[in-house]
Amino acid sequence: MAILASSSVLVIFSSLIYYFFSDMSVCEKYFPDEPKAPQVVSELPGPQLKAAVASLGKVTDARPAYFVADYEKSVGNYIVDVDGNSYLDVYAQIASIPLGYNNPALIEAAKLDKMVRAIVNRPALGNFPGKDTEEIISDLLKVAPEGQDKVWSGLSGADANELAFKAAFMWYQSKRRGFATPFSSHENETVMRNQAPGSPDLAILSFQRAFHGRLFASALTTCLKPIHKLDMPSFNWPKAEFPAYKYPLTENADANEKEDARCLAIVETLFKSWNVPIAALLVEPIQSEGGDNHALAAFFQGLRDITLKYGALLIVDEVQTGVAATGKMWAHEHFNLLPKPDMVTFSKKFQSAGYYYHNDDLIPNQPYRQFNTWCGDPARMILAGAIGHEVVEKDLAKHAARVGDYLYGKLAKLSEKFPEHLADLRGQGRATFIAWTFKKAELRNRFLADMKHVGVNIGGCAEDSVRLRPTLVFEEKHADILVAAVEKVLLGY
Amino acid sequence: MAILASSSVLVIFSSLIYYFFSDMSVCEKYFPDEPKAPQVVSELPGPQLKAAVASLGKVTDARPAYFVADYEKSVGNYIVDVDGNSYLDVYAQIASIPLGYNNPALIEAAKLDKMVRAIVNRPALGNFPGKDTEEIISDLLKVAPEGQDKVWSGLSGADANELAFKAAFMWYQSKRRGFATPFSSHENETVMRNQAPGSPDLAILSFQRAFHGRLFASALTTCLKPIHKLDMPSFNWPKAEFPAYKYPLTENADANEKEDARCLAIVETLFKSWNVPIAALLVEPIQSEGGDNHALAAFFQGLRDITLKYGALLIVDEVQTGVAATGKMWAHEHFNLLPKPDMVTFSKKFQSAGYYYHNDDLIPNQPYRQFNTWCGDPARMILAGAIGHEVVEKDLAKHAARVGDYLYGKLAKLSEKFPEHLADLRGQGRATFIAWTFKKAELRNRFLADMKHVGVNIGGCAEDSVRLRPTLVFEEKHADILVAAVEKVLLGY
Repeated sequence: MAILASSSVLVIFSSLIYYFFSDMSVCEKYFPDEPKAPQVVSELPGPQLKAAVASLGKVTDARPAYFVADYEKSVGNYIVDVDGNSYLDVYAQIASIPLGYNNPALIEAAKLDKMVRAIVNRPALGNFPGKDTEEIISDLLKVAPEGQDKVWSGLSGADANELAFKAAFMWYQSKRRGFATPFSSHENETVMRNQAPGSPDLAILSFQRAFHGRLFASALTTCLKPIHKLDMPSFNWPKAEFPAYKYPLTENADANEKEDARCLAIVETLFKSWNVPIAALLVEPIQSEGGDNHALAAFFQGLRDITLKYGALLIVDEVQTGVAATGKMWAHEHFNLLPKPDMVTFSKKFQSAGYYYHNDDLIPNQPYRQFNTWCGDPARMILAGAIGHEVVEKDLAKHAARVGDYLYGKLAKLSEKFPEHLADLRGQGRATFIAWTFKKAELRNRFLADMKHVGVNIGGCAEDSVRLRPTLVFEEKHADILVAAVEKVLLGY
Repeated sequence: MAILASSSVLVIFSSLIYYFFSDMSVCEKYFPDEPKAPQVVSELPGPQLKAAVASLGKVTDARPAYFVADYEKSVGNYIVDVDGNSYLDVYAQIASIPLGYNNPALIEAAKLDKMVRAIVNRPALGNFPGKDTEEIISDLLKVAPEGQDKVWSGLSGADANELAFKAAFMWYQSKRRGFATPFSSHENETVMRNQAPGSPDLAILSFQRAFHGRLFASALTTCLKPIHKLDMPSFNWPKAEFPAYKYPLTENADANEKEDARCLAIVETLFKSWNVPIAALLVEPIQSEGGDNHALAAFFQGLRDITLKYGALLIVDEVQTGVAATGKMWAHEHFNLLPKPDMVTFSKKFQSAGYYYHNDDLIPNQPYRQFNTWCGDPARMILAGAIGHEVVEKDLAKHAARVGDYLYGKLAKLSEKFPEHLADLRGQGRATFIAWTFKKAELRNRFLADMKHVGVNIGGCAEDSVRLRPTLVFEEKHADILVAAVEKVLLGY
């Protein structure tokens, strides 16, 4: 109780501070001590980092660890490593950190009594929700995609997608047998042998170059690199082609329109001809891991129309694009789809995972079909609620859109200077969700490494592209530092 | 820093308190304010509970919610509902809560600076571990099963099992092609179409009545109730029979030995004859959801021998049995298996999830094969470390074993009085991991409901059994209350 009271005082106090310094930027308000610039003080990789990775390898597979962070010292848009190097972070934990490192509003949330209770009394939320569970879920719904009014919680992006697949398969079969029709004894008996009709042949349609996770079913919908799923057994689920646009978009409108039509025809052909029924179509608003491949609203409306025509669901995977990263709370809201997508999955910037839906037919015909011990993690859901609250209160979608426009403009100018190394600039009007391509793919990895030397932590996508995934509190001043660093590195190529 | 300092003072202070009152039981030391007895003050289900479930149904599928808890008021072995009813909890969030509600040692852990940082700066642990990641993982290894020295983190029991499946499939194929042999271009190409050889036909062997989770691949190894996986597509993975022992064990030793031999022969036949290669055998030390089905050490050693003979891995699913619940840190340690299991999965009482392993051949031949954005949740891993620390420091495995022996003795006596309703008592020598069967299965659900009226929250397993899954701080005095409640209810049947 004492803690709760002191937290409330803190909230009021910090709100006062916030409004008192209202000429400060949102980032300055959150992070008065954020560094003014990156600082690289060791050779790279540094000696402490190398030692830490070697040591970590004794207790787990540490080969992917190319950075060892000092999260205590990291602040705002700057991540600090164990050698004391401080980097401007435009990768943000693979597009995850929403509000900067050690954000004071989230620290407050992490210290709330209800958070402490959620951590130490982890409930089996399906059977034993707490008296505050409805409020926790309602906070997630306050920032739900337009038209969605229910949510089902999971634990990761892959988990969120697979939970959505389960809902889709249950819905599809219920539609076939009748929503009120009980399972037949033949179904009940065959499912125990993993055989049809109890375990029917059903498919999810996804796209080449898609990434939806690496669990078994989600890996089947992922279609990007062999390494993601080699040696894992597989269903034969169909893959359509995602449009490959020509850039700049304004000069290639006709060609891109034809590309949309070509890809939509492939989708429709698959629905007509695939040898197992397709229960749902799964698509990212922007193919993110796959290279920041964009498509126009008309393409997505085309997908919506085809799913309706063939009686399938439309699942939009907003794991990477969601939570204001593209300048709207959810990226698919740029497309004004009608009717709304059936399910929208989330994770990453929300720090919690699950799927939104609005159609009560997606609630399975019997309880305990969509169920597991934990049914999500209320600790992570409380944090998601706090993130949503800050995004709305500080209007961070609009903020990200403004900064993104500024950054895009600067990069567009730079791309004229480096047409080989800053090609196919993508993400105009999508806030800081920006990417570009190296015409010589082999230079891309060198670029990512070289950017560390000028103090920027940056990530790639596909084999030849660079993706920007800064936090939502990235500002013009950070954009200036980033652009200067890009220019400095590219001048050496 | 101030918080860290005050936390340290708290730790020292609470340690002093602990030793000062060393004649108190471990539960009394943790929970001086634990109720002395249950208290049912409302009709059941109570009006607040019914209203809360109805309201929760507006934001999510709330049909499985049969209890709405007040976690603020719950303490130790007592869970309180929103109507103010206080129950002795021997179900503990589906066998999850390790150290009682609002355990002060875990509250301290939840308030540590490193916990707050882990919550607000959720890292992509594979690429960006923190400087404290090795320590956090090492704490998990301090209570690892004998012989295991590495761990890979996941997010739920189902996730832990599926990550183990992935490791098994990668190992199996690497063994076939040679651990140093790179993927062929044909493999790299076919996997992108979800076809063999890149996506090979491989199986996990599990048992009838097994429960290993409800994600797609884990649901395929689960074989208990149709509701767990109806309408989900499926691989044709083999199921063996798990021994069905006759009780009491001492009077049925010969019959049970024959049952072991019969089931082992089925397992061997499946390895010989199944139409796809079996990469691993997955088994619970006690089939928990499936009815608390026990088997003797010789049976498990038989499984170990068969997996070695046929070049498959042995994965032990300790999601429900792990973390001292059976009187040893890990239930399979009762069996002294040689060689040790290849992987041991965990979740539930550890509040974190993943798998232990000792064989470096289980580290995939290339990095990024076992990988995802978060690679676990350090917040939950810190809590698991704190749980492990308490279990060791307070010797809670031994404590649970002692209390379990006491409870088993009382129930054995009661079973003579109620042979129809307290049949096949199971779990002798397995601490409080105890179960029994109703000969009239239809009475079981009535019993679970009736126990609420006498102040006990209790769970079932299979269709006809009752399972006891109290916390590790359950004591003789709680056993007395439980046994009296069972007797009171059974007297009415």
